[in-house]
Amino acid sequence: MDSVSSHRRSDLTVPDDDVREVLAALRDSIDNLDAAMIHLLAERFKCTQKVGALKARHGMAPSDPEREARQIERLHRLARESGLNPVFAERFLNFVIDEVIRHHRAIAESTDV
Amino acid sequence: MDSVSSHRRSDLTVPDDDVREVLAALRDSIDNLDAAMIHLLAERFKCTQKVGALKARHGMAPSDPEREARQIERLHRLARESGLNPVFAERFLNFVIDEVIRHHRAIAESTDV
Repeated sequence: MDSVSSHRRSDLTVPDDDVREVLAALRDSIDNLDAAMIHLLAERFKCTQKVGALKARHGMAPSDPEREARQIERLHRLARESGLNPVFAERFLNFVIDEVIRHHRAIAESTDV
Repeated sequence: MDSVSSHRRSDLTVPDDDVREVLAALRDSIDNLDAAMIHLLAERFKCTQKVGALKARHGMAPSDPEREARQIERLHRLARESGLNPVFAERFLNFVIDEVIRHHRAIAESTDV
């Protein structure tokens, strides 16, 4: 605890201009990462739209609990490897899957076969 | 509607093995995209942990509504460009920011300066 505290105290000497500069640089990186994720999400939904159309056409259930269990297990592992909270990784997947299920239901309702 | 219906009907001739193959290929892509996003989220939280530590050290508020408004506007634009639902893009950002605010509060509470 002491070394952490003293490290924090020494950083208090950073002038305000430098703080703003460091903050701006971190926010630039955050914005780049967000842009990348938006494009990956767009691509992911292209895939799940195709999955949804395929499932609706062949009378398959929109959700697949076994597949989701495997995805959660895999994302837990990837999260641990990359230093992300595995609980958050699971919440993220559920957040995305909720949207996918909404899409699939909409596709199923609009499919006339 | 007619051309969509006939397109759907013609696709019904896809044999079950081919359906499974197409579904497996789409799921492989989804898994790759998810792995990429988990790693980007891990990197994003590294940035926001640094932002949180910086803010706590300099007595800055954990949240920044003006910055968030700019982020939402930008993500709306990126979503439209990439074919993602802008409403979902905003929900995604709020989902991530909720987690960040939780981290920042935890950092502020554990900071003894």
